Amino acid sequence: MDHAASPATPDPAGAPLNFSSDNAAGASPAVLDALVACASGHAPAYGGDPWTASVERRLAELFEHEVAVCIVPTGTAANSLALAALTPPWGSVLCHPDSHINNDECGAPAFFADGAKLVTVEGPDAKLDPARLAAAARAKRGDVHTTQPSAVSITQATEVGSVYTLDEIGAIGELCRAEALSLHMDGARFANALVSLGCTPAEMTWRAGVDALSFGATKNGVPGSEAVVLFDTRRAAELAFRRKRAGHLSSKMRFLSAPLDAYLADELWLRNARHANAMAQRLADGLQALPGVALAGGNAANILFCRLPQPVIAGLLAAGAYFYHDRWAPGVVRFVTSFATTEDEVDRLIALARGLGAAG
Amino acid sequence: MDHAASPATPDPAGAPLNFSSDNAAGASPAVLDALVACASGHAPAYGGDPWTASVERRLAELFEHEVAVCIVPTGTAANSLALAALTPPWGSVLCHPDSHINNDECGAPAFFADGAKLVTVEGPDAKLDPARLAAAARAKRGDVHTTQPSAVSITQATEVGSVYTLDEIGAIGELCRAEALSLHMDGARFANALVSLGCTPAEMTWRAGVDALSFGATKNGVPGSEAVVLFDTRRAAELAFRRKRAGHLSSKMRFLSAPLDAYLADELWLRNARHANAMAQRLADGLQALPGVALAGGNAANILFCRLPQPVIAGLLAAGAYFYHDRWAPGVVRFVTSFATTEDEVDRLIALARGLGAAG
Amino acid sequence: MDHAASPATPDPAGAPLNFSSDNAAGASPAVLDALVACASGHAPAYGGDPWTASVERRLAELFEHEVAVCIVPTGTAANSLALAALTPPWGSVLCHPDSHINNDECGAPAFFADGAKLVTVEGPDAKLDPARLAAAARAKRGDVHTTQPSAVSITQATEVGSVYTLDEIGAIGELCRAEALSLHMDGARFANALVSLGCTPAEMTWRAGVDALSFGATKNGVPGSEAVVLFDTRRAAELAFRRKRAGHLSSKMRFLSAPLDAYLADELWLRNARHANAMAQRLADGLQALPGVALAGGNAANILFCRLPQPVIAGLLAAGAYFYHDRWAPGVVRFVTSFATTEDEVDRLIALARGLGAAG
Amino acid sequence: MDHAASPATPDPAGAPLNFSSDNAAGASPAVLDALVACASGHAPAYGGDPWTASVERRLAELFEHEVAVCIVPTGTAANSLALAALTPPWGSVLCHPDSHINNDECGAPAFFADGAKLVTVEGPDAKLDPARLAAAARAKRGDVHTTQPSAVSITQATEVGSVYTLDEIGAIGELCRAEALSLHMDGARFANALVSLGCTPAEMTWRAGVDALSFGATKNGVPGSEAVVLFDTRRAAELAFRRKRAGHLSSKMRFLSAPLDAYLADELWLRNARHANAMAQRLADGLQALPGVALAGGNAANILFCRLPQPVIAGLLAAGAYFYHDRWAPGVVRFVTSFATTEDEVDRLIALARGLGAAG
Repeated sequence: MDHAASPATPDPAGAPLNFSSDNAAGASPAVLDALVACASGHAPAYGGDPWTASVERRLAELFEHEVAVCIVPTGTAANSLALAALTPPWGSVLCHPDSHINNDECGAPAFFADGAKLVTVEGPDAKLDPARLAAAARAKRGDVHTTQPSAVSITQATEVGSVYTLDEIGAIGELCRAEALSLHMDGARFANALVSLGCTPAEMTWRAGVDALSFGATKNGVPGSEAVVLFDTRRAAELAFRRKRAGHLSSKMRFLSAPLDAYLADELWLRNARHANAMAQRLADGLQALPGVALAGGNAANILFCRLPQPVIAGLLAAGAYFYHDRWAPGVVRFVTSFATTEDEVDRLIALARGLGAAG
Repeated sequence: MDHAASPATPDPAGAPLNFSSDNAAGASPAVLDALVACASGHAPAYGGDPWTASVERRLAELFEHEVAVCIVPTGTAANSLALAALTPPWGSVLCHPDSHINNDECGAPAFFADGAKLVTVEGPDAKLDPARLAAAARAKRGDVHTTQPSAVSITQATEVGSVYTLDEIGAIGELCRAEALSLHMDGARFANALVSLGCTPAEMTWRAGVDALSFGATKNGVPGSEAVVLFDTRRAAELAFRRKRAGHLSSKMRFLSAPLDAYLADELWLRNARHANAMAQRLADGLQALPGVALAGGNAANILFCRLPQPVIAGLLAAGAYFYHDRWAPGVVRFVTSFATTEDEVDRLIALARGLGAAG
Repeated sequence: MDHAASPATPDPAGAPLNFSSDNAAGASPAVLDALVACASGHAPAYGGDPWTASVERRLAELFEHEVAVCIVPTGTAANSLALAALTPPWGSVLCHPDSHINNDECGAPAFFADGAKLVTVEGPDAKLDPARLAAAARAKRGDVHTTQPSAVSITQATEVGSVYTLDEIGAIGELCRAEALSLHMDGARFANALVSLGCTPAEMTWRAGVDALSFGATKNGVPGSEAVVLFDTRRAAELAFRRKRAGHLSSKMRFLSAPLDAYLADELWLRNARHANAMAQRLADGLQALPGVALAGGNAANILFCRLPQPVIAGLLAAGAYFYHDRWAPGVVRFVTSFATTEDEVDRLIALARGLGAAG
Repeated sequence: MDHAASPATPDPAGAPLNFSSDNAAGASPAVLDALVACASGHAPAYGGDPWTASVERRLAELFEHEVAVCIVPTGTAANSLALAALTPPWGSVLCHPDSHINNDECGAPAFFADGAKLVTVEGPDAKLDPARLAAAARAKRGDVHTTQPSAVSITQATEVGSVYTLDEIGAIGELCRAEALSLHMDGARFANALVSLGCTPAEMTWRAGVDALSFGATKNGVPGSEAVVLFDTRRAAELAFRRKRAGHLSSKMRFLSAPLDAYLADELWLRNARHANAMAQRLADGLQALPGVALAGGNAANILFCRLPQPVIAGLLAAGAYFYHDRWAPGVVRFVTSFATTEDEVDRLIALARGLGAAG
């Protein structure tokens, strides 16, 4: 839902107050430095370089587990490759109707998994309802006329900014084990969820039953690097072939790996996420003090949904603020913060809204 | 053929004399500067940014033609997306057995084109033989039992460093028009071929009948940006959907576009290619003066094939030079130069070979 | 929903009262005679035979329109080939959640259409709700992140035995034209719907806006022949290639065509359907007179849903009757009649139910 | 190569001397009787019927091995389903350039196997050359840039009528085991090859290393039934899902199974094949006695290639004989016999040729 500009909204390039998406932010300076530094001299192509090896080591350490790592340039590629490795062509992936894989990838999971189906399971806050998930997981198993439930995909943090608790993930993981399903986590905003929960990467993934993770980095300060992380390393070869045939094996891989390496070093990834979340919280605190403003849904990560009076929306847009609005319901607004959002930007937005509200 | 290290060869990272592949080189300083410069501030995601628009303008100017441009992170993606747009699932693509799409993309064209087939057509110097191509183009047209010739793909420059002349491309283009086939050019080394022929981009493409081009940049000094260029802009929408569902639409597109923009500015792309070609020529001149050395095939671009005495090969490897050898035939060696190859490196390689030859 | 035996039900082979499915019936004698008669002598393979030509002529006459005809052995193949011809790989097909293509084809539409997506639209009686359909048809058109609505598929008669009126089809047809969508009709029970409406084949299809029809015959008295019927004959070649590459071009095509030819001759297909529908009506009339029985949904064709007291269900099963029950809701039973159902069978079932109800 | 009429040849329907293809023949009377007999009464749909069970039992007995059986309506479906079960999407199937899967299935293997590639290996008489096969099997294993050899497919009997000896199959089977490849046999003319070799089905398949067989029946007297036979029954479930999603699970399966059951009973399948082969031999004996006639290739089954003087070809065609000619080389003719070919037809053809040769 990060992609299409509201038709009523002017071109946001250079907008002073851009809360449209974490995809509209640039990259962290340390990450850029690493990218420039890796550029000199020769390096083996296709991932034989030392930065790629370093990323793999760092991820194994972070997750306290052997991992198969597959660095790719986009989150759609990461999700689709992971799901293709977990699902046969006649399988289905159980996911939330509001998930990115269901809405925002133009059918990529079905393309990569050669026709496998997404079967949606409802639930509040864009999170899978456990009872409905159990029912869907057990439906028509073994019936040759129906695609077979093969994997569950959860998004952490979700597209609406909510976060699964460790217990919630664990319950889904247990169901998956019981029903012989694989569990995939779309972690496009993995870091934001992790710092929100204050747990370890291991706790939020394999210890809770996650088999495959799309480890996001781009939204959190990297130019364009994501990683598929598999906790069963026997699937590494399959993943490598799938990546190549999908055109996602970069020849000059160092330009994806070195930024990712810097992102993982010195806890930059966690610092960036903490900052983004804090900015969302600051914005929530400021807005909910205003008359006529109601926060909607969870604000556990870096996405904030709220209802604003229409004159306030109109006034913010007229002032050059950029954000999505009126796509979900009239008066519903989404603000997204990022590693690059400043306290000043947040405070200016709040001040603008306060002024407009008083006038309204 | 640029990817797999010869088993007998040590890790080339940091090798002082690396002639293994233009994929082992880094990126041009001006390109890196542009990448860093684009990183600050917000920008619309998914290609709505000004750098992407600039690349599109530059390519339209360069080609003197309306173009639909689709920037992607790899050459395999560019080739496969272009071919998928030109070929129905029951179609076939006529290509050389030594082409990259046939050997080095792990079936990506068939994956992207939903099962379409590559049908190989022989010819010397890795170039399609016109008579054989005509026969293949006409075989079993309309026969429902056979995949239908739908497109021709040529590589310019080829994987062995040869270059189609304008007349040769024109003849293939004419055949394609006569037989209602589309013509694709894999231009992973487009710039090297262009400066070798000394013609304009228009002459080497649409004026000669090319419908779709994979415009390479990565091998010639960019971290990882390629572009599909279509001369029939009515296919732009299809291409955009295909790119997204293949996971090749970058969210922070500016990090692909800004480098490409710098690459196209001030003729950097041509200067880089001229340099790479000149280094290959310097190497050819130096080596062919040595006893026991025979150049093989054309040396029109930045790839040089030659036969070396085995003691010379062994000696060069022992001295830390890095290159592919003995993959095509015993004693056959491939040297690839790039924008980053220095005269000093070339001269040191020649001097080493001369010394080894005298001793041999 | 015709395929899986309820686990509580004994093997129905030879069951004297089989109301499980029209797929459990055999074939009409005239159809079998034609099959045997076509077997002698040589005939051109792959559809070059005179029976195939005759079927094509008959269908063109029946539909009062030029048609492209593609005879295939199964309904799943017919549906999937038709949809693949109407939908690009990044497209979506709008269909009812209870449709056969969504539930009972194990992902075949996505397989044949190379990853295209089924998007479900609710509505009562297994029929698409026009307002919801319009909303789905217009959602996110042109948004590269989302599969694009490309076709609508309706089932006539539906899986629950209801039938779209001509006005309902016409309204959907108009929406499709307005939104540039193709309209597909799954006519696995086309004949049952047609005689129920008492209209012409033309009125129920192209005059109402249908572009492609899966013309069913197997459920209505043919061993195994279905036909894709396209009203835009320019797509005939594509369909022929798609059929072959899916393995659905029969070498000895006459064995599919001759039965279909006999089915279309002398209005056998209409007589068979009228009989099946009449048997369903006779059953409905008999059952609804019984205490504790409630008919559910429409009974416009040859499928009857009703609620029976559990002792009646148990008693019927114990008496050897065969039908699906308790799959949709407790106490809900489905009876399906066919060309082969006899009045005696219907009357015996009613009598059994009456006796059980009195005892219950 | 059985499908397209030579443009110079008149419509063969009703041709008195039809040697064009075994696909032009009808069906054996006992097979038709079984088809008619199975039609009365109800039977479980989708293969739950007793005839399907009987076919499975018969095949297990014939092959002296547990088997997973998947009955399908066409040989293309059988081949493609078998190969899809043996080959991952990034795999390749090694096959002869003259094989049916390579030439005559319009890309079906790549479609069913989601993009897997056919890699051709030459050899005389349309049989794989063992040394070339070994080289291809070992090429670039583990190289992520290249589709990975995953299966070998051999045709028994081949498209030119030659037959692999048991030793030849055994050698290929051994290579497959050594190189971890699966071995598929396209047995569209399995019976013709079997009676030619005079061995058991077990000897010609799993004892020689065959993993999956396309067991043909249509060309040898059945209206349209083929069977995939897997000797590793653990793959049965996968095969069943693949069949359904490809639209190849017949609802009224008995109409495919009962004919196949009759075909396998009382050695009808072997008698039919023996007759077809004997007719080919009779034709060979008669023709090679004529001046100017040269037999080409092996005549081990029911296909005969020979060179005829052009006036003889023209004269035969003028007399209403039907056969393929001048497709492979000028003057080269193919005659195919079947279970339905009579001695009289063979003798009349020879007599015609003799008369024409004398006149020529």
